[in-house]
Amino acid sequence: MEKVLWNDQLVGRDDVHISIEDRGYQFGDGIYEVVKVYNGDVFTATEHIDRLYASADKIGMAIPYTKDVLHHLIHQLIEVNELGTGIVYLQVTRGYSPRNHAFPTPAVEAVITGYTRESARPMQELQTGVPVCLVEDVRWLRCDIKSLNLLGNVMAKQYAVERGGFEAVQHRGEVITEGSSSNAYGIKNGTLYTHPVNNLILNGITRQVILDCCEEIGLPVVEEAFTKQQAFDMDEFFISSTGIEVMPVTRIDETPIGDGTPGKWTRKLQQAFEAKLPQQLHV
Amino acid sequence: MEKVLWNDQLVGRDDVHISIEDRGYQFGDGIYEVVKVYNGDVFTATEHIDRLYASADKIGMAIPYTKDVLHHLIHQLIEVNELGTGIVYLQVTRGYSPRNHAFPTPAVEAVITGYTRESARPMQELQTGVPVCLVEDVRWLRCDIKSLNLLGNVMAKQYAVERGGFEAVQHRGEVITEGSSSNAYGIKNGTLYTHPVNNLILNGITRQVILDCCEEIGLPVVEEAFTKQQAFDMDEFFISSTGIEVMPVTRIDETPIGDGTPGKWTRKLQQAFEAKLPQQLHV
Repeated sequence: MEKVLWNDQLVGRDDVHISIEDRGYQFGDGIYEVVKVYNGDVFTATEHIDRLYASADKIGMAIPYTKDVLHHLIHQLIEVNELGTGIVYLQVTRGYSPRNHAFPTPAVEAVITGYTRESARPMQELQTGVPVCLVEDVRWLRCDIKSLNLLGNVMAKQYAVERGGFEAVQHRGEVITEGSSSNAYGIKNGTLYTHPVNNLILNGITRQVILDCCEEIGLPVVEEAFTKQQAFDMDEFFISSTGIEVMPVTRIDETPIGDGTPGKWTRKLQQAFEAKLPQQLHV
Repeated sequence: MEKVLWNDQLVGRDDVHISIEDRGYQFGDGIYEVVKVYNGDVFTATEHIDRLYASADKIGMAIPYTKDVLHHLIHQLIEVNELGTGIVYLQVTRGYSPRNHAFPTPAVEAVITGYTRESARPMQELQTGVPVCLVEDVRWLRCDIKSLNLLGNVMAKQYAVERGGFEAVQHRGEVITEGSSSNAYGIKNGTLYTHPVNNLILNGITRQVILDCCEEIGLPVVEEAFTKQQAFDMDEFFISSTGIEVMPVTRIDETPIGDGTPGKWTRKLQQAFEAKLPQQLHV
């Protein structure tokens, strides 16, 4: 019987009581993380939990547990649900209180929910690559916060899916920012380009791992914004996230990238990334 | 015993079950309205319900009831809770489904929640006026949708409250857009200025009533954006919403507006607005 996390308790899904005035439900006033699990072993959990606290700090919200407790709860959740390969979803809202935009005074206890979900790695797409669609980035100017305000991301993704795209790659004006739930990268003449870390993108944990991989394989990185036209003209293009790892992009809208198949640097990054995954995967 | 609305049922608050994977809770994927009730009589309910459906349409979401049914449910809620003067809150989310940014396929049933809250009109503030704080508008570019993605509004309001402000008036660059939960207006040389209706503001129902009042009292209206500096230089300034009606602003940050008291046109608008309220108020 599946257990989910409700504050610091593991309970049945139907035993969770979310108030209709939970600020997460009325304002999207909360933050979240998705942690990948490979054969029961969490990947970059420390980085995800650190970022959860950083996001909370950016919205002036206190998480009522230490990082250690959260690590422990995540492990308990994985164990009790016997999760093999999949994700742990974890979110924290500012709690419930009679509706008012300003923070509750005095503060109320944050509400934590979490669950596991078995999901296979997207092996076929990692092999063949995927098409993406460009869509105007209409999100707020604090995309550095991993918040529950995701309607812009939802609408972008839906736009892409309706057009046969695997992901929506967003552009603010002419400048490519990131995917609706991924970071975006182009490779041109042996150099990797990706949007710099600022208020317009989320600094993905997978992005950070990939930049380490670039160093390992000798691929120079330029963290500078590039345009839609430059994106079409890249030799290679890929997107990344906790769920999709290093995902080759073979087509942007109607334009094939390079020769329309995953490029050689992208393949090398996939290999370097794979080597960082928990060892159990390799035995 | 208080009843709340859960889909088309009136139930006890503790009987509502919101899924931890309700898209409202995880993505802010939903819309809402706040309807004012004066002495048991709803005000501009038709306009609010029409806008609820318009918001739903803008995010590609179906509301599973007719407008008539929603009107009826609102009235039932008011009756069963014996609401005098206060508000009815009503929200609709895209429903619950295993988490995925794209819309669920096939579609799932939307989740409706609603409740009443007794709240007196802010008579003292309507008399004396209030101070507001300016804050950069970092919200998304679809502020015309009354969505549950309100974290930008929350952060703006909190910024103002911490500085003694009654409301945050937002500016995108130099241009005044609207309050965190209100519309904003300036009056200069006998003309009212307010941001035009586009993707950067919500077209408030109270705003629409006020523009009618302007016509009645012979106050010319120019729906054009104005700057922060122009705001400081206005003869009069006010904000409006369902909850705060025509609320005079006497100070923006440290700058008094006009002579620092509510202006004569603002007073006339308050009177014209008052005359439109449900008759029960006047007997």
